[in-house]
Amino acid sequence: MEGDPITELCTPAMVVDVDTVRRNAQRMIDRCQELGVQLRPHMKTHKTLECGDIMTGGTRRCVVVSTLAEASFYADHGFDDILYAYPLPFDKLECLAALSERLSLFQVLVDHPEALKLLSQRPLSAGRPWHVWLKLDCGNGRAGILHSEPEALLLAQAIAKTEGVELTGVYAHCGNTYHCKGVDQIQAVAQETTTLTLQFMEKLRAVGINCKSSIGSTPSCSHPIKDMGQLSEVHPGNYVFYDVQQSLIGSCRMEDVAVRVLTRVIGHCTHRNQLLVDCGWAALSQDGGGKLPSGYAVIEGHPDLKLLSMTQEHGRVEPITGELDYSKHPLGSLLTLVPHHSCATAMMHSVYHIHSGGRLVGKWFPTRGW
Amino acid sequence: MEGDPITELCTPAMVVDVDTVRRNAQRMIDRCQELGVQLRPHMKTHKTLECGDIMTGGTRRCVVVSTLAEASFYADHGFDDILYAYPLPFDKLECLAALSERLSLFQVLVDHPEALKLLSQRPLSAGRPWHVWLKLDCGNGRAGILHSEPEALLLAQAIAKTEGVELTGVYAHCGNTYHCKGVDQIQAVAQETTTLTLQFMEKLRAVGINCKSSIGSTPSCSHPIKDMGQLSEVHPGNYVFYDVQQSLIGSCRMEDVAVRVLTRVIGHCTHRNQLLVDCGWAALSQDGGGKLPSGYAVIEGHPDLKLLSMTQEHGRVEPITGELDYSKHPLGSLLTLVPHHSCATAMMHSVYHIHSGGRLVGKWFPTRGW
Repeated sequence: MEGDPITELCTPAMVVDVDTVRRNAQRMIDRCQELGVQLRPHMKTHKTLECGDIMTGGTRRCVVVSTLAEASFYADHGFDDILYAYPLPFDKLECLAALSERLSLFQVLVDHPEALKLLSQRPLSAGRPWHVWLKLDCGNGRAGILHSEPEALLLAQAIAKTEGVELTGVYAHCGNTYHCKGVDQIQAVAQETTTLTLQFMEKLRAVGINCKSSIGSTPSCSHPIKDMGQLSEVHPGNYVFYDVQQSLIGSCRMEDVAVRVLTRVIGHCTHRNQLLVDCGWAALSQDGGGKLPSGYAVIEGHPDLKLLSMTQEHGRVEPITGELDYSKHPLGSLLTLVPHHSCATAMMHSVYHIHSGGRLVGKWFPTRGW
Repeated sequence: MEGDPITELCTPAMVVDVDTVRRNAQRMIDRCQELGVQLRPHMKTHKTLECGDIMTGGTRRCVVVSTLAEASFYADHGFDDILYAYPLPFDKLECLAALSERLSLFQVLVDHPEALKLLSQRPLSAGRPWHVWLKLDCGNGRAGILHSEPEALLLAQAIAKTEGVELTGVYAHCGNTYHCKGVDQIQAVAQETTTLTLQFMEKLRAVGINCKSSIGSTPSCSHPIKDMGQLSEVHPGNYVFYDVQQSLIGSCRMEDVAVRVLTRVIGHCTHRNQLLVDCGWAALSQDGGGKLPSGYAVIEGHPDLKLLSMTQEHGRVEPITGELDYSKHPLGSLLTLVPHHSCATAMMHSVYHIHSGGRLVGKWFPTRGW
C-alpha cells in the first residue's frame, strides 16, 4: 500500500527508486542540452508510460522503441514521434502502416533493399510518406548495413528517391560500448561510431542528401564526446535504471542504479554453509551468470555474500569466504539484490513497485510481447 | 486466427503442439497407474488452466505449484487439492491461511521448526488443520532439511504432534537428476532419492507416524524405478512440454518436445557470415548459453546452424562450419527454435499459441508473479 515501507512487500519484488530515476533522466536531458543534441530516449528497458513521461520531460514526444507492442502501447497513450528502431519486420507491415497513418510521426528502420521494396509496395493513405531511418552498422556487429560497404550509400540514395518514402535519418547503435571498461574505452568507441556516422553523412551530402543522424547507447551517452554534438539525436535507454553491468563498464556509479529485487531468506542450509532465498531466475533473469565476484547480482550491504546459483524460484547465497553467520540472516529477513542487467530483470516482472526514500508511492505496469 | 497455419503468426511467438502435450501427459498418467503411485503434476512450467486440465486428466485435483500466485490462480478456477511446494514463506502467511480455509485441501511445505511455529501461532478457522508436508533434502542440495540430520525426524514428530497442524507427507525433489546423462544415471539418482525417502518413512513408522511420501522430477518420473511404486505420490512437471535439456539428460526424445519459438530472418549479415533473427533473450530466455553445439537452442531442420548469441530482441545465427547459403533463408523466412529449457522460455511469454498439426487451435494465458 502507498506510504508503506518497501520492506512490507511480499517477495520477490522489483522496486524502483523514483528519485534516482528522475535524477538519471534529468542528467541525460541536461547533458544533451549542453551538447546541443536532441535526446530520443529508448523505452525498451522499462516499457512503462510513467517512465516514458519522466524520460521525455513530460512531452511524450520523441521516443524510440524496440517492439511493435511498445509502439502500439505508447501510441495508445498519447505518445507521438515514435521511432521503431528495429529491422523492418516483413510480417508486421500492416501494423506499421496503421501506426504511420494514425500518428503525426511514426518512423521505421530499414537496412536492406528488400525492406525498402516492401514499403514502396504499400503506399500510405492521404499521400503520407513512410518515415525511414537507414540502419548503419558502425562496428557494433548486430543489425544494419555495414558503413564501409558501397551498398550503404546506394541504399540511402534509393530510400531518398523512392516515391512514398522519405529518408528521415541515419541510425547507428554503439552496443560495442558494452565491452568497454572505463570512460576512456567508452569514449574511444563513441568517437569511432560518431566519426563513421558523420563521415557517412558527408557522403550523403556529397550526393545531395540531407537528413538526421543518431547514435546511442547508455555508456556513450553517459560520457559523450564533443563530436556527438554534431549529430542530430542520441537514443540511450538503460540509463534511467542503470545496473551493475553499467557501473562496471563505467557508465554510472552504483548509487545511480535505480532498481533492486527484494528477496527473503527462506532457508538455512547449515550443512552447505548457504542461505536459500526466494529469488530465482524467474525474478532476476539469468543475466550476469558467473561474471561478478558476487555471483548473479550484488547483494546490497553484504559485500561478503555471493548469489551463487539460481533455479526458477530459489537462489543459493553463500559467503565469498569463511563461515556464514546465520544469526544475521533470520528466516524471513530481507536481502536486497542489485541486478547485473536491469533490462533483463525488468522483463521478468509484470509490476514494478515504485518508492521514494523507501516508501511506496505507486506501481508501474510494463507492456509485454512483440 | 484459429485454423490458420502457425506460419501466419507474427514472430517471435511461442507455439505449443497440443497433441504432443496430450501424449506426454497421458504417458505420465499411464506410467503412474502402472506403478501404482498417485501423480501430482507440477504446474510451474506452463502455469495455465488448460494444461493443468490436461495433466490432471480433467479432474482439476491433486496438483503442485511453485508460487502463491499459481496457487491463487488455480484455486480461483476450480482447482483443489493444491500443494504449494515451496519453503513456507514468512511474508505470505495470511494468504496461505485464506487458501487453507477456502479450499477443501490446500497444503504447504515446512523444512524448519520456525516455520512450524508460525503455523501454530495462526490457527485456521473452524478447527481446520494446516496440511503440512515436510520437505526433505535427499541429496538435491536446495531446499529441505537434510535426511541424515537427526533434526529431520524431530521436526516430523513436532509437526505430527502440534495442535492445529497435520503431517500430511514427506516431500523430496530429486533435481539432481538434471546433472545426469542417460537412463542409468537418472535411475541411480531416482533409486537413491526413493531409498532415502522410504528409509525416512520407516523411521517415522517406528515412532508411530504414518503419512504420505512424494518424490519427483521429470527425469526420474520419465524413467521410474520399481521402488517408486512404494511411494504415495510423484510430482514431475516439465514433462508436459519437455525440451532440449531433457532430451540430453535422456528423459525424452526430441520428438516429445512440445514447445517451439518461431522466429523470422530480419537480416543478412554477409560480412559476418550470419543471419539476424527476431528472437532475442526476451523471447527465448538466456538459458542454455553455450551448452549446446547449436548454441542457445536447436534450430529445427537445420543441424548446420547455430544460435550463437542474443541480445534483448535480436539473435545471431551462423553456420556451425562453412559458408551460409543466404538463398535458403530469405528475409522474412521462418526458423523454428527448440528451447533448451521450456520452463525458462515459457516464462518470457504472456501468451502461448496452441496448434494441432501446425494449425492454430487457441491461446493459453499463463499466470505470472508470486
